[in-house]
Amino acid sequence: MATVSDTEDIDPRHRDLSGTAAGPVAASGPTSPLPSHVNAAPAGDRVFETLKVRKEGAVLYADIASPPMNLLGPALVRDLVSLIQQAEADNDLKVLVFRSADPDYFIPHVDVNRIQQYREEAAKLTGEASIALMFRHLSVSRLVTIAQIEGRVRAAGSEFVLACDMRFAARESAIFAQPEAAFGVVPGGGGIQHLARLLGRARALEVMLSAGDYDADLAERYGWINRALPANELGEFVRGLAHRIAKFPAGSLATLKDRVNAITLAPVEDFRRDSDLFGEGARNPEAQSRFQSAFKRGFQTRDPEMDLGRLVGDLD
Amino acid sequence: MATVSDTEDIDPRHRDLSGTAAGPVAASGPTSPLPSHVNAAPAGDRVFETLKVRKEGAVLYADIASPPMNLLGPALVRDLVSLIQQAEADNDLKVLVFRSADPDYFIPHVDVNRIQQYREEAAKLTGEASIALMFRHLSVSRLVTIAQIEGRVRAAGSEFVLACDMRFAARESAIFAQPEAAFGVVPGGGGIQHLARLLGRARALEVMLSAGDYDADLAERYGWINRALPANELGEFVRGLAHRIAKFPAGSLATLKDRVNAITLAPVEDFRRDSDLFGEGARNPEAQSRFQSAFKRGFQTRDPEMDLGRLVGDLD
Amino acid sequence: MATVSDTEDIDPRHRDLSGTAAGPVAASGPTSPLPSHVNAAPAGDRVFETLKVRKEGAVLYADIASPPMNLLGPALVRDLVSLIQQAEADNDLKVLVFRSADPDYFIPHVDVNRIQQYREEAAKLTGEASIALMFRHLSVSRLVTIAQIEGRVRAAGSEFVLACDMRFAARESAIFAQPEAAFGVVPGGGGIQHLARLLGRARALEVMLSAGDYDADLAERYGWINRALPANELGEFVRGLAHRIAKFPAGSLATLKDRVNAITLAPVEDFRRDSDLFGEGARNPEAQSRFQSAFKRGFQTRDPEMDLGRLVGDLD
Repeated sequence: MATVSDTEDIDPRHRDLSGTAAGPVAASGPTSPLPSHVNAAPAGDRVFETLKVRKEGAVLYADIASPPMNLLGPALVRDLVSLIQQAEADNDLKVLVFRSADPDYFIPHVDVNRIQQYREEAAKLTGEASIALMFRHLSVSRLVTIAQIEGRVRAAGSEFVLACDMRFAARESAIFAQPEAAFGVVPGGGGIQHLARLLGRARALEVMLSAGDYDADLAERYGWINRALPANELGEFVRGLAHRIAKFPAGSLATLKDRVNAITLAPVEDFRRDSDLFGEGARNPEAQSRFQSAFKRGFQTRDPEMDLGRLVGDLD
Repeated sequence: MATVSDTEDIDPRHRDLSGTAAGPVAASGPTSPLPSHVNAAPAGDRVFETLKVRKEGAVLYADIASPPMNLLGPALVRDLVSLIQQAEADNDLKVLVFRSADPDYFIPHVDVNRIQQYREEAAKLTGEASIALMFRHLSVSRLVTIAQIEGRVRAAGSEFVLACDMRFAARESAIFAQPEAAFGVVPGGGGIQHLARLLGRARALEVMLSAGDYDADLAERYGWINRALPANELGEFVRGLAHRIAKFPAGSLATLKDRVNAITLAPVEDFRRDSDLFGEGARNPEAQSRFQSAFKRGFQTRDPEMDLGRLVGDLD
Repeated sequence: MATVSDTEDIDPRHRDLSGTAAGPVAASGPTSPLPSHVNAAPAGDRVFETLKVRKEGAVLYADIASPPMNLLGPALVRDLVSLIQQAEADNDLKVLVFRSADPDYFIPHVDVNRIQQYREEAAKLTGEASIALMFRHLSVSRLVTIAQIEGRVRAAGSEFVLACDMRFAARESAIFAQPEAAFGVVPGGGGIQHLARLLGRARALEVMLSAGDYDADLAERYGWINRALPANELGEFVRGLAHRIAKFPAGSLATLKDRVNAITLAPVEDFRRDSDLFGEGARNPEAQSRFQSAFKRGFQTRDPEMDLGRLVGDLD
C-alpha cells in the first residue's frame, strides 16, 4: 500500500496518529505552509509492516510502528532496509526523519531471540549480516537523517539514533541507555564508536559500564543528543529544521556529510569488529544465562522494560 | 601611522572608541595596573586601514574596524596578514586579542564579490591563495590568540574565531553561524575541520546543514566557544586572562600549543581541500544563482544581515 | 598491616574517618545492602603508608591519606604502584575507587623537590621512570577506576583523575587546575593528551595556558569530569555506581575498556614525550627560578596552596 517514493499516507491502522503534534499539522513560524496529504491515495511497490511513512516535499517522515514495543527484529530491519533503499533512489528526497508511533518506546533494543534472522535482513542492504553496517550505511547516505526521539532508545535503539545525523529528544519522555555490559556483551551496533567520540573517554565509559538509564537532559549535557526539547515543541522544531535543510542544494548537503564523516565516522572495520564481538559474546554461556535471568524478570515485555535500568542492575 | 611593534594608538578616527569597556581602561582585580597609552605617538612601518591596534605590555589588542560591516575582503585580509607578520616578529609579544569596533558585526563573512582578490592577499602570508591556510597559520603561531566576540561571526567570521586559541562571547549580542550550505557551498576556511572536532558529528552537522543562527549560550553548550559571558564583564575577563597568560614563560606557551595542535588541529591538506571545495562550489551556477537571490534580499548590507539566518532560509 | 587483597580495614590512625558519608555506611536505594567489615582483622603482605584501603565485595576503596596535603611524592607513588599490582592480581576485584582522606586536597601536584625519586618508584610498575606511564597503566587496566573528588586536584593530581575511567566531584569543594605553564613547564603526566581530547582545542588551551583554578561546575561544563554532585550525595552516588558495575561480568567490562581506549587513549609514545618535556623543562633555569619564586610564596605548604591559582599568577 504505502511506498516511500510517492505516498503521502501510510498504513491506515495508524491514521489516527496522523494529527498529533509530531504529525502533519500545519507548520508555524518561518517554515512555509506545507500541503496536507492526509487523504492522498497510497500506491507503490513496497508495503511496510512496521513503518508509517509520509512524504512532504523533500522530507520523508518514517514513524516506527511495530507493536507491542518496537523491538528491532527481522520485520523492522527488513522495512528499514527497504525504506533506505527506496529513499536513496528517490532523487526528490533530501531529508529523512525518524519518529516513533509509540510514546514510550522509540526502539528499545534488538530482539535477542532473533539475532540471526534480523542480521540476515540487514545483509540485504550492505552484503554483511550486521546491523552495525546497516546503521553506518545510513550515516554515509547522501540523505540527511534526523531522529525525533520520544520514549526509550536503548542498546541498538541508541545505536540507531547515533547513526542518524542529528538527534532531538523530548525532555519529558526520552530515555537513553547502552546496557549491554549488564548482559556480559558489548554494544555491537556502533554505540562504542559513536559514544567514545561524542562523549569522550570518561562519559562513554560511564554510560556503557553502568548500563544505566539517562534522561534527555543528561543525554544533552553529555553530547549523546543534539538537544533536549519540551515534548510539545519537539515535533514543530524538527519539522521546521527538516524543511529548512530540504531547501538547500543537495550537492552541498552531501559534500558536507562526506567531509564531516571523514573526520568523525569510524571506519567500517571498527563497526564490523564491534558487531562480531557482540555476536560472539551473545553466544557465550554467561551472556545466555543473563538473558535468561532477564527474561524471567520480564525482558522484552512492555511494562517491565519501562524501568530496564533497574532490571539489568538486578541480573545474576 | 600605526604599527604592531611599537604603537599604542591607532587610526585617530577610532580614538573615540578607546575608552570603552573593551579598551584600555585600568584593569581591576588581580591584573596589575597597566599603563595608559592613549596619547602615545604612533610610529612605524605599516598603517592599518581596517584594524585598530593597541599594545599593552606583551598583549596586543587588534580591533576590527572595517565599516560598514567588517566584511572579510582584500583590505582586511591584507591588514591581518601584516598584523600577524609584525606580531610574530615582535619578541616582546605573547598574546594577541581580536575584538571588533562594531558592536553588531565582528566578521560577518567574506566579500563574495572579491574572492580572488582576498585570496591573493592571504597568499602573502602562506604562499597559498586561501584564507583557510591563513587561519591555520594563526592556529600554529607561537602567539596565543583570543577572540573577544560581540556581534555576528558567520561563515569565515566563525572560521576566523575558530582558528583562534580561545573564544569568549557576549551573551547578549554574539551570533554564530556557518551558513554556506544555504548557498550551495561548503565552509572553506576550516569550519568543517574545527566544528567536527569540537562539536562532534551530530552538532557539527546540525550547525552546518541548518545554516542557522546560534546565540552565545547555545554556542557555549555546543562547544563552539569557550564561554558566553555578560557583555559588561567580557572585556575585563579577556583582559585579565590575556595579561595573566602574558606573564608566563613564552617557551612553555609555545610548547603547549604545539602539543595540543598535534592532537586537535587538522592537517594542512584537509584545510586546503575544504578551501578548494569552497572555491569550486562558489563558481557553479547553482551557487551563483543563490548568491544573486541573496543580494536581492540585501546580502552584504548591514540591516538585512542582522537576521541572516532567516534570509538564507528564504533563498531559492 | 593492611593489604589490598583481603583486608577490610586499614591503618588504624584513619579508623575515625570510616563512618563518613564516603565510607562504608549502608547503601541506600537500588544498591544491595553491603556487609560491614569495619572490624575485620587486617592481614597481608603489604602495608600502605599513604593509602587507606577497604574492600567491599568486588569494589576496593583507596583513600589517599598522605599528610600534610597529599603531595604526590615517592611514598604515595610507591603505594599506588603496590595497590595497582595487588588489585590487578586479585581476581575478585572489578572496581577501584579513589578518594581522599583530606577534604581540602585530593592530590595537589607532585613534590617538585623529589621528581627523580618518585619517578623511580613509578618505574617499578612499568619499567619506565615516568608517572605518565603509571597513570596510563591504570587507564588500560582491566579494573574499572572511579575518582571521587573532594578538594584540590591540580597538575599531576588532575592527571591522576584524568587517567581514571570516571570522575565525579563535589560541587562545593573540588578545584581543578593544570598550572604547569605558570612555572615554565608543560603537563607531563598525560594532562595534555586527555584534556585536548575531552575538552577540545580551545578549552584545553584555555585551561593549560591560563594555569587557573576551575570549580567543579565549570569542570563539568568543559568535560574535565563526568559530573559535579552535591558533596553530601557524592559518596553514595559513587558507591552505588561502583557496586552496580561490579555486578556485571568482568569480561565485558574489560572488553569495553579496550574498545573505548582504542579510540580515546593516546599512544604510549605521546605520554612518554610529554613526560620527557616536563622533565627537561623542570631542569631549565627559568623553571627553577619560578619554582623558587613559588616556594617563597608558600608553594607546597597547605594554607598558601588553597589559592594556588592566584599564587601562580603572581610568579616572576
